[in-house]
Amino acid sequence: HKRCQSVCALRDRAASPQKKALNYQQVTYLLPACNGEITTMSFLQDIVDILLQYVVKSFDRTTKVIDFHYPNELLQEYNWELADQPQTLEEILLNCRTTLKYAIKTGHPRYFNQLSTGLDMVGLAADWLTSAANTNMFTYEIAPVFVLLEYVTLRKMREMVGWPGGCGDGIFSPGGAISNMYAMLIARFKMFPEVKEKGMAAIPRLVAFTSEHSHFSVKKGAAALGIGTDSVILIRCDERGKMIPSDLERRILEAKQKGFVPFLVSATAGTTVYGAFDPLIAIADICKKYKIWMHVDGAWGGGLLMSRKHKWKLNGVERANSVTWNPHKMMGVPLQCSALLVREEGLMQSCNQMHASYLFQQDKHYDLSYDTGDKALQCGRHVDVFKLWLMWRAKGTTGFEAQIDKCLELAEYLYNKIKNREGYEMVFDGKPQHTNVCFWYIPPSLRSMEDNEERMSRLMKVAPVIKARMMEYGTTMVSYQPLGDKVNFFRMVISNPAATHQDIDFLIDEIERLGQDL
Amino acid sequence: HKRCQSVCALRDRAASPQKKALNYQQVTYLLPACNGEITTMSFLQDIVDILLQYVVKSFDRTTKVIDFHYPNELLQEYNWELADQPQTLEEILLNCRTTLKYAIKTGHPRYFNQLSTGLDMVGLAADWLTSAANTNMFTYEIAPVFVLLEYVTLRKMREMVGWPGGCGDGIFSPGGAISNMYAMLIARFKMFPEVKEKGMAAIPRLVAFTSEHSHFSVKKGAAALGIGTDSVILIRCDERGKMIPSDLERRILEAKQKGFVPFLVSATAGTTVYGAFDPLIAIADICKKYKIWMHVDGAWGGGLLMSRKHKWKLNGVERANSVTWNPHKMMGVPLQCSALLVREEGLMQSCNQMHASYLFQQDKHYDLSYDTGDKALQCGRHVDVFKLWLMWRAKGTTGFEAQIDKCLELAEYLYNKIKNREGYEMVFDGKPQHTNVCFWYIPPSLRSMEDNEERMSRLMKVAPVIKARMMEYGTTMVSYQPLGDKVNFFRMVISNPAATHQDIDFLIDEIERLGQDL
Repeated sequence: HKRCQSVCALRDRAASPQKKALNYQQVTYLLPACNGEITTMSFLQDIVDILLQYVVKSFDRTTKVIDFHYPNELLQEYNWELADQPQTLEEILLNCRTTLKYAIKTGHPRYFNQLSTGLDMVGLAADWLTSAANTNMFTYEIAPVFVLLEYVTLRKMREMVGWPGGCGDGIFSPGGAISNMYAMLIARFKMFPEVKEKGMAAIPRLVAFTSEHSHFSVKKGAAALGIGTDSVILIRCDERGKMIPSDLERRILEAKQKGFVPFLVSATAGTTVYGAFDPLIAIADICKKYKIWMHVDGAWGGGLLMSRKHKWKLNGVERANSVTWNPHKMMGVPLQCSALLVREEGLMQSCNQMHASYLFQQDKHYDLSYDTGDKALQCGRHVDVFKLWLMWRAKGTTGFEAQIDKCLELAEYLYNKIKNREGYEMVFDGKPQHTNVCFWYIPPSLRSMEDNEERMSRLMKVAPVIKARMMEYGTTMVSYQPLGDKVNFFRMVISNPAATHQDIDFLIDEIERLGQDL
Repeated sequence: HKRCQSVCALRDRAASPQKKALNYQQVTYLLPACNGEITTMSFLQDIVDILLQYVVKSFDRTTKVIDFHYPNELLQEYNWELADQPQTLEEILLNCRTTLKYAIKTGHPRYFNQLSTGLDMVGLAADWLTSAANTNMFTYEIAPVFVLLEYVTLRKMREMVGWPGGCGDGIFSPGGAISNMYAMLIARFKMFPEVKEKGMAAIPRLVAFTSEHSHFSVKKGAAALGIGTDSVILIRCDERGKMIPSDLERRILEAKQKGFVPFLVSATAGTTVYGAFDPLIAIADICKKYKIWMHVDGAWGGGLLMSRKHKWKLNGVERANSVTWNPHKMMGVPLQCSALLVREEGLMQSCNQMHASYLFQQDKHYDLSYDTGDKALQCGRHVDVFKLWLMWRAKGTTGFEAQIDKCLELAEYLYNKIKNREGYEMVFDGKPQHTNVCFWYIPPSLRSMEDNEERMSRLMKVAPVIKARMMEYGTTMVSYQPLGDKVNFFRMVISNPAATHQDIDFLIDEIERLGQDL
C-alpha cells in the first residue's frame, strides 16, 4: 500500500528532541490551531503509547485484573474534579494513565465477571476509526459507509438466523435491554397500530410472557412502555432453566379467560445465569396457535448461530418475529454492539417514524431508503456496526466459529473438572449448554454439615467473601448471585478467546486458596 | 513522566524492516496469540497512522468535506460483503482506508450540516481510551473510575444548571431523544408511581405539552411510553420560534376541562431549526401553578450554560425538574454524549430499578450507592462520560466558554453579512440567539418575481439543488428544511470551533456560485 509520506514526516518531527517540550504546552496548540499538526501528532501518539502499554498488559497473566480501591479511597487518591482553568497536555496524559491504573482489565484472560469480556484487537482498531469518523447514523448523507455496512451486516445476521435471503429489518441499538424493548414496542404496534397516536388508553389490556429465568429487561421494557410489570407473566422453568411450554400455554389461556390480550412471548436463547436455551420450536408452535408475536432474546446465546456445532440449540429461532443478538457478548465485539432483527420489513419504520423534516427531507438527490434513522427510537445514534463488520472481515464466519467453539469447550472442561471434585456442588446437573457453569464452592468446614438452615446461611456468605478477596488480590473476577431458593453461587462464564485451560485451573485453585478457611 | 521502556522497545521492533512482512499475516497472530505483542503493536500503529492522516486532512481546507457517491455506486465501488474466510491484516488496513475515503469529514471547518460538528483532539483521545478500557457502566465493580467520573461530571453539570450544591440525579444516555424519553418516564412515575406495575390502564389519561418547534423526540417518547402522540399538545410559538406562555396556559386549562391530566411541559432551550429559547421563567410559573413537571430540552442550547455572556438565555432552567443537555452538540464532545439531569434524587432509581440479583448483589464489600446501573433503562451502558470529563479537564470551563462564545460570534457575523445582502431573505428577523441562522437564498431569476405561488414553488427547489451540488463538489455541507408554511430554507449552524470568518465567507460565496443559475 501507499503510505502517506506527509504523515510519516510529521511523525518523525513529532518524535524529535523538541517533543518533550511540546508535551507541556496547552491544549490550544492542538488542531484546529494554526500549525497544530505536530503537537497533535505528538499528543495522540503519546496517548496511543499509553493505550498500547495497557493493551499488552491486559493480556499478561502476571498483571492484576484489578487494582481495587473502595470508592471513598479512589476519590481521595487523585483529584478528579472539574475546574475553570485548563490543564496542560502533560496533565491530560497523567489523567489517562491514572484512569487506566484503576481500570478493570476487561481483556485479561482471567476476567470472567460479565457476559462481555475480552479485548479484540481488530474491534479496538475499528472503534478507534469510528471515533475519528465521529458521525451519526441517522442519514446516508452524513454516514454513507456506515449506513451501507449496517445494511450488509444486519442482512448477514438475518441469514444466520435463517430468514430466507436475509430478508427483514433491524437496527443496532444501545444494548440488549433496548433491543428487547424495541421488540415489545413493535409487537404492540403490529397488533394495535392505533397505540402510536392514541396510547394504551385506546387498546385492550395487554400481557406478555417470558420465563422466570429471563432477563430483567423484559419487565423494564413493560414498565417503560406503559404496559406495567404486572402484565409480564413469568413462565416456570425446568431444572435447567428452560421455559416449560405447557406452562406457557396454560398461562396464555388463563390470561385470555381474564380478558387480557397476549401480544408477546419473549423466549430466551441463553439465559443470563444458567445459560439455558428455551425450547424455541415448541414455543413457536404455541405462538402460532395463539397468534402471538414471538421474540427471541438471544443477547447472550445468539453468538452460537456462528457455530455449526452449537447452533442447533437455537433451532426454531427462524420462526421468531424478532431476535435480539448482542455481538458484544459471545462474539467479543467491543462494547457496545447489540442488534435487533425483525422478520417483517417496514414495521419498525411505521412504528417509530415521526418524519422530522429537518433530517429526512423528501427532496434529497439520493435513494431515501438509506435514511434509516426514523426507524429508531433514538434521534442521534452511535456507529456501533463498524467494529462488528471489521472483525467479521478479519476472522470470517469461521473465525468467530472457532472462537465460540473454544469458549464452549473451555466451559465443558470446567464442568468436567469440578462436577465430581471434592468441595463443589453443581447448581444443576448435566453438561453446560452455553459457557455458563453454575456451582457452589463448599469450604471444608461446611462439607460434613447437615443440609439445614445454618449450613445455607453460612454457604450464602461464601461466594461474596471469596469474590471480595479476589478483587482485593486482583487475581481474577467471577460473578455470583442467588437465584430463586438457591443461595449465592458462582456463575462462571467464558466469552474471552484469550482464556485457556490453565486459566480455568487457576480460577479453581484461587477459589480454593481464598475460600478454604471459611 | 516515566515512559514504559518495554513499550518503546516493542515499538522499535514493530517499526523494524520485518514490519512489512508482518502486515501480511493473519489476524490470528494478533493478541491474545502467544508472542502477539509485536504484530499487535505494528497493526495498531498502522491503524493509528491511517487515522492521524485522516484527522490532519479533516482540518485541511484544501480537502473535500465529502467524496460523494450514490448508494448504488458505493455498493459497487468496493466489496463490502461478509464471508466465511478471514482477510489478511493488510486487507483490514485497506478496509479502513476505504471506509475513511468515503466518510464525511465531520471535523472539517466547512461541515455545518448538523448540530454536532467538529473533532476535538482531547475528546478523540479520550474515546480511544474508552475503547481500550472496554467496560460497562452498570456497576462500580467493573467501571470504578468511570462511575466516579460520571458522578463528578453530572454534579458539575447540575451546578451549572443552578441546582444548589449540584444536588440531584442524572445519567448519561444514548442521545437526546432517549434523555427526553427518560424525563417523560420519570415525570409520569412521579405523579403516578403505580404505573410501573399497573401500566397506563390504571391511571388517568395524561397529556404533555411542548412547542410546535420542539424536537420530534417528545412525540416519539409519548408513542413509545404508551401515552400516544395525540396526547402531546403542541403550543404555538412566536415568530422567533419561542413557546407562547399564554397559549400554554390556555391549553392546560382546556385539557383539564376535558378531564385529562397534564403531567409534563417540555420546554426547549435551543430549538433544532430556529435555535429559539422558550421563556423558561414564565413556563416555570405556569408549571408551578398547575403542579406539572417542567422539563427543559437543552440538548442543543444547554452548552450556553458554559458562557457567562450567553447563559441568561436559559434563565429559569434552575426551576426545571429535569434537563436534557447534550455535550456532543454545542460543546463539541465526540458522539455520543447526552446527559439527563434530574432535580429530585432517587426518583430515577425508583422508577427504573428491577433489582437484578446477578448484577446488584446486596452483599458486596463496597458502598452500593455507586452501583448506579439500575437507574437506567438500559442494562449495559456505554461509557460516554470520559470524553467530556477529559475535555473539561483540558479546556477548563473557561475553554468551553471561549469556544462557545466564538461560535456565537461567528453566527452573528453571518447574520450581519447576509441580513441586507442582495439575494437573501431571513426566515425571521433579529440577531440569532443561538448559532442557528435561517435564510433563503433567492437566485437572480426569482428576485424580481412577485410573491406568488409560482415563486414559492420555485424557491422550494432552490435549497435542495444547491445542497445536492455542494455534496457533489464536496466543498461544504449545510442543512435545509421546510417548516410550517415556510418552504425550504437553509439552516446554518456553527458548533465547530475550527470554523472561521473565512469559512462563513466561503459558504456564502459557494451558495451564490452554485445557485446563481437557478
